[in-house]
Amino acid sequence: MGVQQLDAFFRPRSVAVIGASESPEKLGHEILRNILEGGFPGAIYPINPKSETILGLQCFKNVKEVPDGVDLAVIIIPARFVPQAVADCGEKGVQAAVVITGGFSEAGPEGEALQQEVVRVAREGGVRLIGPNCQGVNNPYHPLCASWPLLQRQGRVAVISQSGTVGAAMMDWFSDEELGVSCFVSLGNRADVDETDLIRYFDQDPNTRVIALYLEGIKRPAEFRRAIDEAGKPVVVLKAGRTPRGKVAAESHTKSLAGADAVYSSLFKAHRVVRAETIQEFYDFAKALAYLNPPPGNRILFITTSGGAAILATDTAEREGLDVAPLPAELADALEGVIPAHAIRANPLDLTGDAHAAMYQAVLERARPYYDIMGIIFGDPVADASTVVTPGAHEVVIFLGGADVEKVERKKMHLNGIPVFPTPERGVRALAQLLPPEKKRKPARTTVPASPAGGRHPSLSECLEFLENHGFECVCHRFAESPGKAVHLANQLGFPVALKIDSPDILHKSDVGGVRLGLRSGQEVRKAYEEMMESARKARPDADIRGAVVSCMASAGLEVILGMNRDPQFGPVILFGLGGVTVELFRDVAMRILPITREDAFAMMEEIQAAPLLDGYRGAPPVDKEALADAILKLAHLAETHEDIMEIDLNPVFAYSEGLVVADARIIWRGA
Amino acid sequence: MGVQQLDAFFRPRSVAVIGASESPEKLGHEILRNILEGGFPGAIYPINPKSETILGLQCFKNVKEVPDGVDLAVIIIPARFVPQAVADCGEKGVQAAVVITGGFSEAGPEGEALQQEVVRVAREGGVRLIGPNCQGVNNPYHPLCASWPLLQRQGRVAVISQSGTVGAAMMDWFSDEELGVSCFVSLGNRADVDETDLIRYFDQDPNTRVIALYLEGIKRPAEFRRAIDEAGKPVVVLKAGRTPRGKVAAESHTKSLAGADAVYSSLFKAHRVVRAETIQEFYDFAKALAYLNPPPGNRILFITTSGGAAILATDTAEREGLDVAPLPAELADALEGVIPAHAIRANPLDLTGDAHAAMYQAVLERARPYYDIMGIIFGDPVADASTVVTPGAHEVVIFLGGADVEKVERKKMHLNGIPVFPTPERGVRALAQLLPPEKKRKPARTTVPASPAGGRHPSLSECLEFLENHGFECVCHRFAESPGKAVHLANQLGFPVALKIDSPDILHKSDVGGVRLGLRSGQEVRKAYEEMMESARKARPDADIRGAVVSCMASAGLEVILGMNRDPQFGPVILFGLGGVTVELFRDVAMRILPITREDAFAMMEEIQAAPLLDGYRGAPPVDKEALADAILKLAHLAETHEDIMEIDLNPVFAYSEGLVVADARIIWRGA
Repeated sequence: MGVQQLDAFFRPRSVAVIGASESPEKLGHEILRNILEGGFPGAIYPINPKSETILGLQCFKNVKEVPDGVDLAVIIIPARFVPQAVADCGEKGVQAAVVITGGFSEAGPEGEALQQEVVRVAREGGVRLIGPNCQGVNNPYHPLCASWPLLQRQGRVAVISQSGTVGAAMMDWFSDEELGVSCFVSLGNRADVDETDLIRYFDQDPNTRVIALYLEGIKRPAEFRRAIDEAGKPVVVLKAGRTPRGKVAAESHTKSLAGADAVYSSLFKAHRVVRAETIQEFYDFAKALAYLNPPPGNRILFITTSGGAAILATDTAEREGLDVAPLPAELADALEGVIPAHAIRANPLDLTGDAHAAMYQAVLERARPYYDIMGIIFGDPVADASTVVTPGAHEVVIFLGGADVEKVERKKMHLNGIPVFPTPERGVRALAQLLPPEKKRKPARTTVPASPAGGRHPSLSECLEFLENHGFECVCHRFAESPGKAVHLANQLGFPVALKIDSPDILHKSDVGGVRLGLRSGQEVRKAYEEMMESARKARPDADIRGAVVSCMASAGLEVILGMNRDPQFGPVILFGLGGVTVELFRDVAMRILPITREDAFAMMEEIQAAPLLDGYRGAPPVDKEALADAILKLAHLAETHEDIMEIDLNPVFAYSEGLVVADARIIWRGA
Repeated sequence: MGVQQLDAFFRPRSVAVIGASESPEKLGHEILRNILEGGFPGAIYPINPKSETILGLQCFKNVKEVPDGVDLAVIIIPARFVPQAVADCGEKGVQAAVVITGGFSEAGPEGEALQQEVVRVAREGGVRLIGPNCQGVNNPYHPLCASWPLLQRQGRVAVISQSGTVGAAMMDWFSDEELGVSCFVSLGNRADVDETDLIRYFDQDPNTRVIALYLEGIKRPAEFRRAIDEAGKPVVVLKAGRTPRGKVAAESHTKSLAGADAVYSSLFKAHRVVRAETIQEFYDFAKALAYLNPPPGNRILFITTSGGAAILATDTAEREGLDVAPLPAELADALEGVIPAHAIRANPLDLTGDAHAAMYQAVLERARPYYDIMGIIFGDPVADASTVVTPGAHEVVIFLGGADVEKVERKKMHLNGIPVFPTPERGVRALAQLLPPEKKRKPARTTVPASPAGGRHPSLSECLEFLENHGFECVCHRFAESPGKAVHLANQLGFPVALKIDSPDILHKSDVGGVRLGLRSGQEVRKAYEEMMESARKARPDADIRGAVVSCMASAGLEVILGMNRDPQFGPVILFGLGGVTVELFRDVAMRILPITREDAFAMMEEIQAAPLLDGYRGAPPVDKEALADAILKLAHLAETHEDIMEIDLNPVFAYSEGLVVADARIIWRGA
């Protein structure tokens, strides 16, 4: 059976409500009323053996007694009667049935058997099923509201949900915001029609621009994968059951295996399905994808009356891989006289409290050629805000606060098909879903303390000497100004040795080939020395290269980093983390503003994600935390007593089961 | 000047509005009207040289002409007249002035000079200042609304904001939700009074339960730190300017250094300040902290009518370190007859669509003794929902969807001081802020594919042999069943060697002391062999220990992991990531469902966070990605052709600039 047969669910010519009721508090009454009041354009047949008419419609004892053809049946009778009703539908030639009734597979083995029976009867009669145990379907375009509540606004998002409530909440929000949906389908127990059928169907539906799926599990994984791969429209998914206990709950709710969440993530990523983390994102993302066009690039200009909101927007944009690119000089010039003289011409562009709709308009006109996206933030009650934005353009609107004016203008914009978001973070994150990964840049991270440029950098040998004089255990080392001296010292220290370039001008030694480890003979040392000098001189012809430090190879321990830096606001900050390249790639570090106590030093060791490594992971011995705490406190003391030191980086420090050794160091002193 | 003098801002006996205006569209009119209509209990003096009366109040030409005492002046006159007005306030004995007017330090060097002048004059006259360039203050308890819009509802949160808009949005939301604030202060340029003064003030204020601070920078870092350390009330902070460009925008907005974001994070963590990530969290967290009491522990029971919403809540709770602990058998028994027979007694507890308020009530009564927190989720229009919950109890209410019923019941609950959250994720995350870290457990991660328990595990030597037969380059190795044989093989392979226990029953070798690396002599090998057997037999007396694998020490390369697993839904999944302990601590892996192409293999290598390491990081040579792609595809082929293999773990694999070597492996076959 193809996708076409599903038309009987969403565009039937006639509908029978099996279990229609005269009692207004019953679902069989509410659904009939919603179909009727929703303006269903075809014939409606209430089916109830005990009534003559319901809501003014002639009632039939059985669907088979209806004189004309019936495309769709909506079934709301006790579970045990459902198989017979479906069999009747088959005989009558009904093409599709939505079974609202619960008490099937979700209710235990007996219900499961009953569900099997319904499926068997439906197959025999050629009836396709949605449900059982579902909240029905609502197509505001036909219109057909075989569901509840009655929501009639026509929108662009097809909401398909394994949870009636989650789907209904989405519909509620779209309706509250004057946006509506293109269709709502509650999947229920998915005895027949499932998410895969509906992705294919709504991918063809002319009213649908975005398919929004709430899932707890997938019924036919391979077919699902094919459907999302082939879908031409954006698909947004909210997949619940991500944690171990959430998964158990989901499997119990759907009565099926849910699969591992990480596998879903990679599946969605591979097929460009947008994954929402929360139900609110589910809504925001679907809204953005339905009402905005994908921008050509990631450059965004924020125009605002609220400095605060624009900073929050900038942070979010940078984290999402958008580019809050500086204002081009040409544009800055073009804005002279357009915005108030005291407004600073930068991105974000704060029009100040004096802004009004016409000023926004004037700025937008001038700025459009310079950016891919306009981020328009109304931070005050800006009257006529709705006149400023173009439907379908690459313009995201955020209206924060603004009280009653906001409510009026938001409604106007939504009626014009311009999505408005209530906070900067929500708006920008939703917008970011429109850009494929290749159009984004590396997400910006939070800022870390960094000393101002400049300062004096002693060479490695000076750093190590200084540290030794202040009580740090450093790797045994000597300074060599020639290859011969290096070999001589290596013989003294014993092989293997390490060779590191010694220059006050070279901070990142390995970048210039200035680190050679595990040299095992005089010959290797000589060769390494000569190569090192050559490559360093080539890379940094201006550098004062004094020679190299020859050191013992510290025996393998856990590599950690200890650091000190001065924050312009808070002064000295101490940092501890896993060392080596890990610190740069994962930034797994703990920080403290001085002063700190021994307790703080231990707390820092607890705080990092890699903390288990310190306690002896996978059979390794635990490291000497007392020695690490000593070193952290020594570093803190150094920061407090040496105001002239701006930055210290001990990386790597090898931590052992007893003691530690500083293997490399970098110190920056104040001054030229 | 102590905290007491700030009383003149928030509890003045009389207030002068300098710049009061007769024109309704002017701020000088709106503020006067808000003070008046807000019900200010003392004398109000409009100051305007050109008017006789405004809004029925007698007007004065100068504040000095007011016959009685004036505690507070609100100043809304052009910037250049402000210094004189403040000087007049000093002469008159006015204690406090709120300067609304902008055009000071935010507007360039001239404005900065003017601001300095205002500060100087204020100091001379003994006048304390809020602002300039601010949105005023609003204390609904006095009441005094020297701000806009006029919001009168009394609440529990003091909102202190460096951005007028962000603060006003918070006030708007609290007002819209019938919760109100205890006070609102717009800091403006902070020429005098700053966030630190106000933390101290509102920590003493009897109406305030929570201090909510929006910050872009801190004026006096050391004093701020002391103030948050000493604060007895919860402090919630939204700190903007987190990314490099956000920081620049914040520094431009506040005209001061902002400091590094990571330092703020560590500061907040150390002093137990709750940090919100978004303005919406800022609101949610303040609301939760103001209206819920800290629960005694982290065990939460979710009671719901919406299975879907409860799964989303469970995921969030587990990720936040709450414990969605299974339903105790005793409680399950106690619920018999209380909830519908077809409702499954588990946590989350889904009362099904048949639930009503009385059923919630009955469940809550029985469940309270077994859990620390009740998570009450109304997923449908549950009438009288508001009667179910106890104000101030450890009960978080989430009302999702529910249409009009939700709106009515939420309002009732808010008027009763019970906070209601609109989505499961928002409610649970807000709730989690009430628990100190030591009461939380390790956050649950998302689930990864895991083979069902059981299966047949060949020993290491069998695994390596199998892999070699299928084209993988493995480390050179031999099997030894005795210490003598191990020594003999080590001599053949050449020192140093690695020794690993060979047992089909021991999957995690290092956990039982079953891995010894870098053995340099026959003597070391013998000793290691004997110790290994002893410790392994002690740890796993039941295990079939066959001997040990002696292998060459693969030369140091980049440690990566290659893995294969079968997901119950999607079948074989291939995994690639950084190897060693990193994979367990940071889970930095990429996954793909089969089939995969060579392109996918490369995409996986790009996808991991540690991708730069593969390309040659910090002077290291790039690894052989072609060889890695080959290995990934070989693994995929193995998965496709060997249905009986459930799981393969190659970890570590050493990747070199040319080729790679599998150094350790684990394979699980189907069957006992």
